[in-house]
Amino acid sequence: MPAEIERKYLVTGSEWSDASAPSVQIRQAYIANTPLASVRVRIKGTTSAFLTIKGADAALSRAEVETAITVAQAEELLTMRQGAVIEKSRFRVPFGGLMWEIDVFEGENAGLIIAEVEVPTADHAVELPPWVGQEVTGDARYYNANLASDPIRGA
Amino acid sequence: MPAEIERKYLVTGSEWSDASAPSVQIRQAYIANTPLASVRVRIKGTTSAFLTIKGADAALSRAEVETAITVAQAEELLTMRQGAVIEKSRFRVPFGGLMWEIDVFEGENAGLIIAEVEVPTADHAVELPPWVGQEVTGDARYYNANLASDPIRGA
Repeated sequence: MPAEIERKYLVTGSEWSDASAPSVQIRQAYIANTPLASVRVRIKGTTSAFLTIKGADAALSRAEVETAITVAQAEELLTMRQGAVIEKSRFRVPFGGLMWEIDVFEGENAGLIIAEVEVPTADHAVELPPWVGQEVTGDARYYNANLASDPIRGA
Repeated sequence: MPAEIERKYLVTGSEWSDASAPSVQIRQAYIANTPLASVRVRIKGTTSAFLTIKGADAALSRAEVETAITVAQAEELLTMRQGAVIEKSRFRVPFGGLMWEIDVFEGENAGLIIAEVEVPTADHAVELPPWVGQEVTGDARYYNANLASDPIRGA
């Protein structure tokens, strides 16, 4: 059973951009959110797309099933979405031996920048980069599903 | 955009079993049902599984995205379901130039037998086999999603 353990922070500085690889453009939306699962469709760039179902039973460690679909299928699924389409640019930045993913939101969440890092265990010590601020792991306002229904304007 | 046009009938006779190929065992459940889409996981036999998202915006003709997944992924998704797992044996029977699918339900819907046929256009004339009774196309009680939440006992 694959499981992800992720920690999430608001981004307050901009020094990360020096160390970043070129970004990928992400468009995603939610087909459904139930008490047990979220159903997400995501288009990365112009050629790849994924359908992802995540268990909703815990904040940090969640079961996940992901399958590749065609961009045409993803576009069709977007018409069945709940809430808005989230648009963001994703940058990958190595720091402290881990790979950080920085999402720069556009559209209705423009101004919001979030950094996520996947850790091997829930109690793994994370060396914090100087450009992160408040930790928002488990804060429902920053779940992508909620950013689709209740956008947040960044600073 | 793939679309299915299906007509659905209750089965009242048993003569169809003479013309049927061996059945396949189906287990399926719904991860979500929204006003716009249903998200279904289905395991066929012991080796194949599918994740299917259907548009819910019309009774007869519906958009559909289906992708193959592993049986292990399907079993994980079953833990995130809403409602019951539907269990049925599916038989395929040729009649009148079309291929009929006959679902013999087990478990909570035991006794219910439904025949479905896919037609090329919504106004295509369907030659009815002698073993079908009432047409239930578009009758929400017989949607598989509703058979999962509100089972029907057959005659």
